[in-house]
Formats: sequence, C-alpha cells, structure tokens
Amino acid sequence: MRERAKKLVSDLQDQIIAGLEQLDGTGTFGRDPWERPGGGGGLTRVIADGDLIEKGGVNVSAVHGELSEAFAGSLPGSGRTFFATGVSLVIHPRSPHIPTVHANFRFIEHGDKSWCGGGADLTPYYFHAADKQHFHDVWRSACDRHPDVADYERFASWCDRYFYLPHRGERRGVGGIFFDYVPASDAALDFLADAGGSFLEAYVPLAEKHRATPVTPAEREWQLHRRGRYVEFNLIHDRGTTFGLKTGGRTESILMSLPPLVKWSYAHEPAPGTPEARLLAEVTQPPGPPPAEDPRAGL
Amino acid sequence: MRERAKKLVSDLQDQIIAGLEQLDGTGTFGRDPWERPGGGGGLTRVIADGDLIEKGGVNVSAVHGELSEAFAGSLPGSGRTFFATGVSLVIHPRSPHIPTVHANFRFIEHGDKSWCGGGADLTPYYFHAADKQHFHDVWRSACDRHPDVADYERFASWCDRYFYLPHRGERRGVGGIFFDYVPASDAALDFLADAGGSFLEAYVPLAEKHRATPVTPAEREWQLHRRGRYVEFNLIHDRGTTFGLKTGGRTESILMSLPPLVKWSYAHEPAPGTPEARLLAEVTQPPGPPPAEDPRAGL
Repeated sequence: MRERAKKLVSDLQDQIIAGLEQLDGTGTFGRDPWERPGGGGGLTRVIADGDLIEKGGVNVSAVHGELSEAFAGSLPGSGRTFFATGVSLVIHPRSPHIPTVHANFRFIEHGDKSWCGGGADLTPYYFHAADKQHFHDVWRSACDRHPDVADYERFASWCDRYFYLPHRGERRGVGGIFFDYVPASDAALDFLADAGGSFLEAYVPLAEKHRATPVTPAEREWQLHRRGRYVEFNLIHDRGTTFGLKTGGRTESILMSLPPLVKWSYAHEPAPGTPEARLLAEVTQPPGPPPAEDPRAGL
Repeated sequence: MRERAKKLVSDLQDQIIAGLEQLDGTGTFGRDPWERPGGGGGLTRVIADGDLIEKGGVNVSAVHGELSEAFAGSLPGSGRTFFATGVSLVIHPRSPHIPTVHANFRFIEHGDKSWCGGGADLTPYYFHAADKQHFHDVWRSACDRHPDVADYERFASWCDRYFYLPHRGERRGVGGIFFDYVPASDAALDFLADAGGSFLEAYVPLAEKHRATPVTPAEREWQLHRRGRYVEFNLIHDRGTTFGLKTGGRTESILMSLPPLVKWSYAHEPAPGTPEARLLAEVTQPPGPPPAEDPRAGL
C-alpha cells in the first residue's frame, strides 16, 4: 500500500503540474529534489512570475523514520515508527479576480495504524456564488463516487471548522473539503487518487473564467491585504506548517505556501456595500457545528 | 504601585511618540482608544506613510480581570486575578538602511506576585557594527544605573535566546535586552522608567545616521524579504502575539507589529560576498547558551 501511495502522489504531482502549466501559458515549475536526513525526501516544484500564477508550488514528499515521543503520542497508532507520503499544493494567482487555492492528499502509517487525509479549499478575493458552487460540486461528486470511505457533508463541514481564524472571526475562504483518519484501504486510496485527480476540474475553470477581468489598483490592494489572512492562518494554525517547522521539516518547501507579496495596514476595512465588503460578509461566519463523532472513530 | 506603573507607561508613550514624530518630520500618530470587555483598555497609536516611518505603533494598555485557569497556572502567583499594564512599540522604517526596532515595558500582578518585564531589540537589514554597539551601549548604561534589579549581560543573552527563529537558524536581528520576572519594587519601576526613557537615545541616532542613504530597488527587495522573518517570528513564536490572539486580545492592536509590505519568494538567498550576505552571516548564529538560573528564581 505504501508503494501504491507513493506512486499515486507522484502521479498527481505530474498531472496537476501539467494542467497548471497549460493554464498559466508561460510559467513553468522548477524542480528541487531534497533528502531528509532521518529518512526519505521529496520533490519541491515551485512556479513564480507566470502569466496567471504569481507564485505557487506542487510538492511531494515520502518520509519515514522515528517520530518524537510527544508527537507519536498525539497520533493514532503505537510506537514511534512512521511513514508518510503526500502531495501538497498552493496557487497564488496574480489577479485578485482569481481565487487562491490549496489542496493536499496524503497517506500516513504509524505503528499498527494507517490512514489517508487531505482536502482542498478555495480562497477568493471577490465572492461569486457560482464559483463556490462549482468548486463544491466537484468535491461532492468525487466523494459520492466513493461512498464507503468519503462523505461530502462531513468533509465540507470539517473544512469550514479547520480553515478558521478565531482572532479575525473569519473563515479562510469559501471552503471545500477536509478529511483525516480515513482508514487506509484500496478503496481509500481509490478515493485519494480520484479526489486528487479532480483538482484541475475544480480549479481551472474558475481561473479561466476570471483571467481576462481587468484589475484596478484598489482591487490589487485588497488582494494584498487579504493575503495577510492566509499568512496568519498558515503560521498560527495550519497543523502541517507549524508541525513541519517545529520538527525540522524543510523550511522552504513548507513555506512555499506563503503568498509572494502581502500587506498589513492597521484596521484596514472595506467600505460598506462594496464587493470587498461582500467577500468579508461571506467569510465572517462561525466555524460551523462541532462534529457528530470523534473523527478518529473509524481507526 | 499599580497607579505608578500605569502613569509610567502612559508617560513613556507620550515621550516616545513626541520623539518619533520629531524624527519622522511629517507623519503623526493616530489615536485609537479601546475598552476590554473583561476590564480595562488601552490606547493604540499607529503611524503610517510617514517620511521616515512606513508603519509603526506605540501602544499602551492597562487590563485587569480573571485569567483562564490554564494560563493562570503557567504564571508565577496564585489564583486567577490579574492586572497588567505596558507600552509596546514597533517601528518599520521605509528605508532598508534604517533598522526596524521593537521595545516593550510592562508591569504585571498575578495573585500574590507582581513583576516587571520588557526589552528592546534591533532588526537591521544591513549590518553596521557601530550601530549594534551604540544600541547595546545604551541598554548597558540603563542597566548599569540600576544594578540591584538589572543585569545587562543576562538581559542581552536572554534577548538573543528569545528572538530566535529555529526553522531559519536565525536570530531576529542584532539583539538588545529582554527581561522578565523582575520582582516589582520601586527600584524595578525606576529601572523600567529609565529603560523606556532611553529608547529614543538608543534608536533615533541610528535612524538619523542612515536616513539620507539612497535606496536601490534591490535593497528594497531585500528588506521586503527580511520582513518576512519578522512576520514568521511574531506569528509563530512571540509570546505576546500568540497569547494575545489566542485569548481574545484586540487583534488590530496586537498585529500592528506586522510590517506594511512583505515578500516571500522560494529559496531567496543573497549572493556570497554581498552586504546582504553579511547581514545573514550576522544573524545566522545559535540562540546563545541557556540561562545559568531559573529566570523566575527571584520571585
């Protein structure tokens, strides 16, 4: 299963990069292989200054070794031996009319347990109900094709809870899906492959739809300020980021998720009735109800 | 002592703002008073788009009430009742030739214990040994005037340990002083007033010295990337920031510390032999030796 998972994430990296390079038109992803001193390694592939993509990365890693006792104790499974492989991507488009997007698909083994996790979430700078609908429809369909292991409603509400900034009272964007602790099985890997394979369908049409919209300086300003929220979420709350940084992960691969250019101004707020205020109203929502059951229950 | 501390931090705010407005020449600090639902409040004073200062804030607060049980248990003193007052400032100059600076002076009561804390640290974008020397000399003198409560060597090494980014292997800058758990007394408040009163002497000459240096686009780029480290430190490690955000502090007052404009590029590194590489070599140092004694020993 380990080998299948490794191949799956590597194939997803290739497929997604091919689609994104085609979307961008001029930019290409570099290739930065690295090794982890404790075991394994990865291939970081970053794009910068494309026609559509200002900065982005589609990274894979397959690492193994020994976890710290504290971290091992916080995970399902016994002992300290682990294996993890996954693909993780963030795309920051140049235009504020095109949403930022993140996705991640991973397989983890720890002692006697193994499971899949991942998700995808959309962070627009301007709200379009049809975009949100399209993005969610793709993930709903992917989940519905794998009813034994995936549950769109549960994963979508998990996403709203996870990508939440308490100190702003804001969600990161318009959601998507988030899942973890899906017991590893051929069916779970089928779902992982299918969900990862759905990424381009979920995102590319939205980017194409808005790429020709002209951008005013005020719209760019708004985007740079909203990107600050992305930084705040990733550095304060994102488990992958904070855990990776605190346990000696490869810093540049982890922080490729940060936007290329960001502004923070004191008490920056949109005027009432503007499209900017509409986006803010959309994301200023509670994180959603707590889960009906322990997300690790199935493991 | 509470009243003396409140007046002390408020006087420091006035004095420091007067000096910084004089330094800037055109910018002025706004005035944003706020109240804390649980007790107390503060006065946030932020400057933006000055001649010398791109963004900065000099904030005071005086808050009281009940701490969460978990946080109360992590502090010296009994029970959950607390009082805290302090002045906190961060200045992000426009020119990369002028260092960013932070300082903070505070007085805290928790149950049967009360103490003072604070410090000041300098974050240059280009290294000048004489600047580091001047900054440290001012703090050494301030400490030496209060030998019963302050110890420059101990406070300077504490600063190097505290303002450290493990995932970068870098210090935030060239240090200064950091102190905490100095048992409250008239002598401790005398030190706090004298240290706070030394801030302008520590910083203004450095800003004046470099304000006329021309700035190239490449130097500005370097500054924007180094500012990313400031964001990383404040959002991941700074205790004031993370604690404040996680316990319902006033978000905009806390995050005034973030720089106005920031860049993150994948694997951005200076060429060998450049002034940028010289700065990097200066900050790429271990955090310094662990303290000889428990910093709370005197309480």
